[in-house]
Amino acid sequence: MAEKGNISIHTENIFPIIKKFLYSDHEIFLRELVSNAVDASQKLKRLSAIGEYKGELGDLKVKVAVDKEARTITVSDNGIGMTAEEIKKYINQIAFSGATEFVEKYKDKPDANQIIGHFGLGFYSSFMVADTVEIISQSYQENTTAAHWVCDGSTEFTISDTERAERGTDVILNIAADSEEFLEEARIQTILNKYCKFLPVPVEFKGEIINNPTPIWTKSPSELTDEDYKNFYKELYPFSEDPLFWIHLNVDYPFNLTGILYFPKLKNEFEFQKNKIQLYSRQVFITDEVKDVVPEFLMLLHGVIDSPDIPLNVSRSFLQADSNVKKINTYITKKVADKLAEIFKKERENFQDKWNDINIFVKYGMLSDDKFYEKAKDFALLQNIEGKYFTIDEYKDFIQANQKDKNDNLVILYTTDEDKQHAFVESAKDRSYDVLKLDTMIDSHFIGMLEQKLEKVTLKRVDAETVDKLIEKDETKESVLSEDEKTQLKEIYEKAINNTNMHVTIEPLSPQDQPVVITLPEFMRRMKDMSKTGGGGMMFMGNMPDTYNVSVNANHPINNRILSAQDDSKEKIAKQAFDLALLSQNMLTGPALTAFVKRSVELIEKD
Amino acid sequence: MAEKGNISIHTENIFPIIKKFLYSDHEIFLRELVSNAVDASQKLKRLSAIGEYKGELGDLKVKVAVDKEARTITVSDNGIGMTAEEIKKYINQIAFSGATEFVEKYKDKPDANQIIGHFGLGFYSSFMVADTVEIISQSYQENTTAAHWVCDGSTEFTISDTERAERGTDVILNIAADSEEFLEEARIQTILNKYCKFLPVPVEFKGEIINNPTPIWTKSPSELTDEDYKNFYKELYPFSEDPLFWIHLNVDYPFNLTGILYFPKLKNEFEFQKNKIQLYSRQVFITDEVKDVVPEFLMLLHGVIDSPDIPLNVSRSFLQADSNVKKINTYITKKVADKLAEIFKKERENFQDKWNDINIFVKYGMLSDDKFYEKAKDFALLQNIEGKYFTIDEYKDFIQANQKDKNDNLVILYTTDEDKQHAFVESAKDRSYDVLKLDTMIDSHFIGMLEQKLEKVTLKRVDAETVDKLIEKDETKESVLSEDEKTQLKEIYEKAINNTNMHVTIEPLSPQDQPVVITLPEFMRRMKDMSKTGGGGMMFMGNMPDTYNVSVNANHPINNRILSAQDDSKEKIAKQAFDLALLSQNMLTGPALTAFVKRSVELIEKD
Repeated sequence: MAEKGNISIHTENIFPIIKKFLYSDHEIFLRELVSNAVDASQKLKRLSAIGEYKGELGDLKVKVAVDKEARTITVSDNGIGMTAEEIKKYINQIAFSGATEFVEKYKDKPDANQIIGHFGLGFYSSFMVADTVEIISQSYQENTTAAHWVCDGSTEFTISDTERAERGTDVILNIAADSEEFLEEARIQTILNKYCKFLPVPVEFKGEIINNPTPIWTKSPSELTDEDYKNFYKELYPFSEDPLFWIHLNVDYPFNLTGILYFPKLKNEFEFQKNKIQLYSRQVFITDEVKDVVPEFLMLLHGVIDSPDIPLNVSRSFLQADSNVKKINTYITKKVADKLAEIFKKERENFQDKWNDINIFVKYGMLSDDKFYEKAKDFALLQNIEGKYFTIDEYKDFIQANQKDKNDNLVILYTTDEDKQHAFVESAKDRSYDVLKLDTMIDSHFIGMLEQKLEKVTLKRVDAETVDKLIEKDETKESVLSEDEKTQLKEIYEKAINNTNMHVTIEPLSPQDQPVVITLPEFMRRMKDMSKTGGGGMMFMGNMPDTYNVSVNANHPINNRILSAQDDSKEKIAKQAFDLALLSQNMLTGPALTAFVKRSVELIEKD
Repeated sequence: MAEKGNISIHTENIFPIIKKFLYSDHEIFLRELVSNAVDASQKLKRLSAIGEYKGELGDLKVKVAVDKEARTITVSDNGIGMTAEEIKKYINQIAFSGATEFVEKYKDKPDANQIIGHFGLGFYSSFMVADTVEIISQSYQENTTAAHWVCDGSTEFTISDTERAERGTDVILNIAADSEEFLEEARIQTILNKYCKFLPVPVEFKGEIINNPTPIWTKSPSELTDEDYKNFYKELYPFSEDPLFWIHLNVDYPFNLTGILYFPKLKNEFEFQKNKIQLYSRQVFITDEVKDVVPEFLMLLHGVIDSPDIPLNVSRSFLQADSNVKKINTYITKKVADKLAEIFKKERENFQDKWNDINIFVKYGMLSDDKFYEKAKDFALLQNIEGKYFTIDEYKDFIQANQKDKNDNLVILYTTDEDKQHAFVESAKDRSYDVLKLDTMIDSHFIGMLEQKLEKVTLKRVDAETVDKLIEKDETKESVLSEDEKTQLKEIYEKAINNTNMHVTIEPLSPQDQPVVITLPEFMRRMKDMSKTGGGGMMFMGNMPDTYNVSVNANHPINNRILSAQDDSKEKIAKQAFDLALLSQNMLTGPALTAFVKRSVELIEKD
């Protein structure tokens, strides 16, 4: 005995759930009601355009009013209006989407898609903040009577005839005791600013139009000047400096998307402000969390994206899998890369001037997206300490002659801090080597990527080795010391330094170099840098002790003097020379520094 | 003509919304089905306990099975079961909460509250991942027939008689093409581990019980050993070090809450891991985002909170306003403060040993919660550079004799970096002043708070002034220089320094002090430190230039020498003395440092 039946929903049980759980933010009710009012206005416009409505459209407008004494918020429009029958049909039957039926009827007309609201259940969000909700509505149709609908938040309603001077609808919320905050005009103003700023029909509050119904992203780039773009940026982010560049997005197929993305001027590299891109759906603000819609590395951009094709209110995993979202991602990445390539090609000076501000975006993009890397490798810039800019290929040419080692590898030298590594930069300059500035947080990752992508190219920080070994040539340096003297010297220094993480070697440097040079092996240091900025799986490196190479210059007169000095002063001189090397590496601190300063004061006194 | 009516919900319209939008994570379906199966088991237990069910309970157990070939997931229990009539009543009428009715019926019995599920709509979440869902169920009641219900995700269902060997229910999901991920056993294992790890009825998957039905928070502290608490911690956070302390929470009135909070051992102060507390509702995992439930400063703690009284799935603003949540907040804060006070009193040594790990929690709490401050001020510790610990009152007594200034203010000296401020720490020690270590990020705020709360107490960093001025006594120091010589000396130094942010003064320090001392005025520096760590509205301070006081020691022989030196070497000596002062403040860098090192190497050579 099989039986068939229908699942039924008990309204009295589901209603509280819709009211309470549908939206996580109660303030959403206002977006929903104003959006509905805008829809009602646009539907009438549409009917007029296709000749179904012959009357005057007049000045289509939505009004929002707060009456603190009466404890009401009213949202009014002079749009299509509803008869009692229509109210019963559209409002009383939850989720019977009026928009769907409207579209069904007019679907063969162009632009029908433009007037479907996403917000079928939206009206009921008013019960999140109101005890009782009233609707007073007069249909645009001739010979109809205005209707007055009242519902106290239970599932019962009453409806009766009434009068309304003009076509349109008022939705009146009698605000509940626990939602009094919404009776503050300042609060309402804030909510309208957040969600309704660019709605396509004028919205009036406190006698003023609060929105810009034709924001520039809805216009064609050919109508717009640089000033327009900059002014719109200021409208979005009132206290910001001018943006560097912008990209006007406009695509119809295979998805619909418009928008403007701006490259902001960053004050410092820690100022990464994500969530600065606003997501709209037909000019209704949805969210500023665009994760998954915009590629991760472009979340540093600012601006607006408007698309009815991005699924809303669904789970994150669903969003990631959505094919439109994937296409949008690819499209935005391509547009950004093309725009940057174009600026680089047409206005290289301008591009270089702004490189300091945009290098983070570009490097982040190259690191995280291979397709972006392929385009960006031709306009990504390297800057040397003289301030000159090169593309990667230009730079390889530039250092070709002087910076090849004996194994035919090109060695790129860089500094992460010109000030702290000053002595080493100077040594490199003495050899006519060029030195790049790679000093942002992202560079520790960027350096590793360059080495992987470029063939026969190595990158080394200027203090990775003594200057002769940075780029090893096929020359042997002569040492003035015998093997025996070297062994002696090494022992003296090891005793003076007394630290097993300092590896002493005696090297035939030039007499003009320092008597002692402390270097940090490139690989170890780079791994540690990467682990600091959250590098791939290298976190354990952060806990390794620092190890240093101490190169004692066999050819420096001081080291000769140590060998010939009296036994009791050998170590003292070695210690002073080592302390000076520590100073050059910013490693002389604490008691050692205090003692060094004291000794030095005494030296001036004697002097 | 007024008309009354009822709002109705068209099931075919609301059904897709429930399926798609009710939960943002699709994986939740498994939590819901397993929770329902657990409820069915517990209901039977309850009926047996009150004598309504006389049969054998047997081995109550929930089984989860994945059949990749058949593309099904089955959740089975041997609980209360349902007849065809009950299925129609509880399942077909969405949101007709079976639990509500069950409780209504048995509400006068003790513990009725324990068996109400929160998950009225939960069953329907299965349609988020399944095309077709089947139920096969045999009621515990005698003389009833098993029923087989099938629904393909439309609102139509069929129900027919069937056979089931034993009492209980199988829910069989035929997984949809876009949800194949859930046919991977590894995925199911992960979801079960996340949500079902502590469900109160054994849950079997792949032949093994995956849960611990009686986690220690459900037990009485008197039954538990330290090992039990540590083992449970390891169970929650497998690769962690042992926790420092724990607090067993257990309250029935005015809300129901159990749980265990752990003070974790932090490796470093940047490792703040929020979202480490797991929130449960009757042993069902809900979330690890406990914001608003736990006071902000206690979000650094780890552990478990289980409460049926925390409203779930509601908006954040609602949660903040909820009176239970407020009470829970207060309760937890009090419990934590009391526990710390108790450990401090009973095991001061142990408390001191762990102070380095817990001081962040305690200071954060004192800063953000006045009630917590009131309790914590008696056990919050200050540590001096000798490693000794003091309570605030103890410390005031300790320095009373030596560190009062001429206005009867107690001056607390501190260092934020013993190594970098070494020379200044030494000077203070020479005067027998005590110096506190206040070197964590939070200390810049903590210092300000101490000054506000304590009367006639000032805090100064050791390098805020020259050592004589740090604690001003009623003594006048004699200067060996005439007013005219002072003016000359000032001019020489100003020329040598050539920087308007360095304010030169000539001061009668002791001849044993350094010839030049650079200090950072306390207030300015503190504001800058606070702005770095996000202090209250002080962000603009970060952009102010650093200003320094340069105190030239009128009584140091070098400065006498400058006055008597030849004109062309006056400035040279002053520059060297100033450079040494910069070195002591870690401010000599870049080209200036390289030049200094070079000069110093030459000095050794000549030496």
